[in-house]
Amino acid sequence: MKKIQGGVCAPKGFKAAAYAAKIKYEGRDDMAMLYSDEPCEIAGTFTTNVVKAAPVIWDRDIVQAGDTVRAAVVNTGIANACTGQEGMDCVKATAWAAADALGIKENEVLIGSTGVIGMQLPVDKLRTGAYALASGLERSPEAANRAAKAIMTTDTHEKEIAYEFEIGGVTVHIGGMSKGSGMIHPNMCTMLGYITTDVAISGDMLQKALSDVVTDTFNMISVDGDTSTNDTLLAFANGLAENPMIDTEGMDYDTFYKALNTVCLHLAKEMAADGEGATKLVECEVRGADTKDNARILAKSVIGSSLVKAAMYGCDANWGRELCALGYSGVTFDPQNVDMYFRADDKEMLICKSGVGTDYSEDEAAKLLSSDHVEIKVDMHMGSESAVAYGCDLTYDYVKINADYRS
Amino acid sequence: MKKIQGGVCAPKGFKAAAYAAKIKYEGRDDMAMLYSDEPCEIAGTFTTNVVKAAPVIWDRDIVQAGDTVRAAVVNTGIANACTGQEGMDCVKATAWAAADALGIKENEVLIGSTGVIGMQLPVDKLRTGAYALASGLERSPEAANRAAKAIMTTDTHEKEIAYEFEIGGVTVHIGGMSKGSGMIHPNMCTMLGYITTDVAISGDMLQKALSDVVTDTFNMISVDGDTSTNDTLLAFANGLAENPMIDTEGMDYDTFYKALNTVCLHLAKEMAADGEGATKLVECEVRGADTKDNARILAKSVIGSSLVKAAMYGCDANWGRELCALGYSGVTFDPQNVDMYFRADDKEMLICKSGVGTDYSEDEAAKLLSSDHVEIKVDMHMGSESAVAYGCDLTYDYVKINADYRS
Repeated sequence: MKKIQGGVCAPKGFKAAAYAAKIKYEGRDDMAMLYSDEPCEIAGTFTTNVVKAAPVIWDRDIVQAGDTVRAAVVNTGIANACTGQEGMDCVKATAWAAADALGIKENEVLIGSTGVIGMQLPVDKLRTGAYALASGLERSPEAANRAAKAIMTTDTHEKEIAYEFEIGGVTVHIGGMSKGSGMIHPNMCTMLGYITTDVAISGDMLQKALSDVVTDTFNMISVDGDTSTNDTLLAFANGLAENPMIDTEGMDYDTFYKALNTVCLHLAKEMAADGEGATKLVECEVRGADTKDNARILAKSVIGSSLVKAAMYGCDANWGRELCALGYSGVTFDPQNVDMYFRADDKEMLICKSGVGTDYSEDEAAKLLSSDHVEIKVDMHMGSESAVAYGCDLTYDYVKINADYRS
Repeated sequence: MKKIQGGVCAPKGFKAAAYAAKIKYEGRDDMAMLYSDEPCEIAGTFTTNVVKAAPVIWDRDIVQAGDTVRAAVVNTGIANACTGQEGMDCVKATAWAAADALGIKENEVLIGSTGVIGMQLPVDKLRTGAYALASGLERSPEAANRAAKAIMTTDTHEKEIAYEFEIGGVTVHIGGMSKGSGMIHPNMCTMLGYITTDVAISGDMLQKALSDVVTDTFNMISVDGDTSTNDTLLAFANGLAENPMIDTEGMDYDTFYKALNTVCLHLAKEMAADGEGATKLVECEVRGADTKDNARILAKSVIGSSLVKAAMYGCDANWGRELCALGYSGVTFDPQNVDMYFRADDKEMLICKSGVGTDYSEDEAAKLLSSDHVEIKVDMHMGSESAVAYGCDLTYDYVKINADYRS
């Protein structure tokens, strides 16, 4: 697998565009469009929050119908959540405008929104934006990058990635972009994620791969424990690479799965590291768990703890907080079997052995924790299952950003 | 019921003492003792965290044995959690010293610790403290108040309360003290709570009352979502009021239950309001839920949301975050049925009607939210069950306190 430029435009036949619709932000793009020259198989995973934003309902219905799609329109600034019938009408109007401009059907257009909950979107601006985006589509790394920037809210930088690899001797591509960075929690985060690929794969296998990959990537990150109303991850596959069609499990499926997993893991870690106010990426790897689910639960409990996150910000090796978070995770275990290591920049320290603190140096630990990428490694000594969760520290800036988000 | 002075010393036969053992804090008391002239029935509830501090294991065993007790010794600064055999030996040594000084048995002495996890307690200081406390016991409002202050960690003020009421024509008393204020989350918080009463009640009925009361009081508060390793709530009943013994449910039990609930609710709300860094008490009342459990889950989900808490700090009526938190609580409901009100200082505003924002004034809402006691009232329109959860806002100071707690 070779990392390449081009983001969502790296796969053949995908174009992108960005536009400043002035929905809420000034002086930046706040709408993006993704378009495929050919019909795409589509797969999606969505928020589990029972309060679902209007575009989530729209996209879910399209994905469930199983027909091919051609485009996606995304806006930032307003989430179009808790907006009732007016919100749903706005989604339809936007899809209709995009379809009209692109000469496709409205149910070939997926819609994504992120931003403030409870406000109505200015439908005229969305409609104007859809037409402007359609006329500005191009296939270039620059267009992909502008689109990745246009979907940001409080993110500090865009998140995109692309790879080239081979399936059945044929060169294929996969690209992706996503945005974080607050209201981020498993079961989809406040994230919008768009994966494009020119791999020929059936809709069923695409959905299977996406659903499985999400479990250990996007669903293993947490910024603040809040599961958003808008989380949406979509994968578009247009088949233009002309590899032998993947319609069953097997070697080709495995190759695609691995590429999809690499793209999603990269975007997920980027989102965790760019959590609101975050100064560092915090990983927790739990190994030696009795079941895979328990490994995931334990790792996420540590990453989600406000006290662990605050200690990470303060570079304080207050490991009892990690052990405490394992303890209230809901998983049953014997604390006397737990070992814990802190790791950063290729240096590893054994902090807790058999549930009791070791004679480590606080100064050395503080120095290690000052890295911008800290790993907490936990061995439960119960079995052979492992999982990794990704989060960030809790900082003054998180509070600042969220105390005053709407103004 | 009449509110009275005297805290844990208000009921007949209870004495208290405080002492500066210099375990971690300087220039303040950091150990407290509670003692009853007569043997007490004892009831307790403890953390559900599988990582339990040594004193929690000690106390739980005593409560489960069902014998009467006489005293409690509490220290602050170090939690004696994740300390292995050395930690348990320290608990025994402290109980033995207190028992020796008081002329009672060591299994009549309950132990409580709060503070940093993972450090060993200086056993000599604990032992010296136990003897000093025993010689300083007295029954006075001042002694009760000093004890309530001595058990504080990052609390900004002591929490104590006492009431006088009647059972079967006999005047009886109940008092309590507790400490918060970080690592506070349902299923017992990082709290230590001590209730004293001179009511004559059987151990079984005392335990039943305490367990039931906790569900809607201490277990409905949250500061930061972290369930501590040390949470302990103990109720001591020495029977000195000589009311007709309460050994079955009935009118007298109901009267006692009501008094116990009042004391626990007062202490719980005080703890929420004094959460680390908090500037205000935030209540969420959910009514119209289909089941009592669902009402509790919904209310706690709102109170526990970092985004709701940050918005409360910023006096931002960002009600979509409340609706979002209801949505990811795990309870199934139709967002279109949800009404939401903000209330403070006898002013109430309808913010969200049938899942959609009303035409409220942002300025008026911001003014209302600037109160130091804000209520979020939610009507689910699904049934007739209700519950109230108690929390606080998320502030810079929370991060500051917890990024650097150990230094």
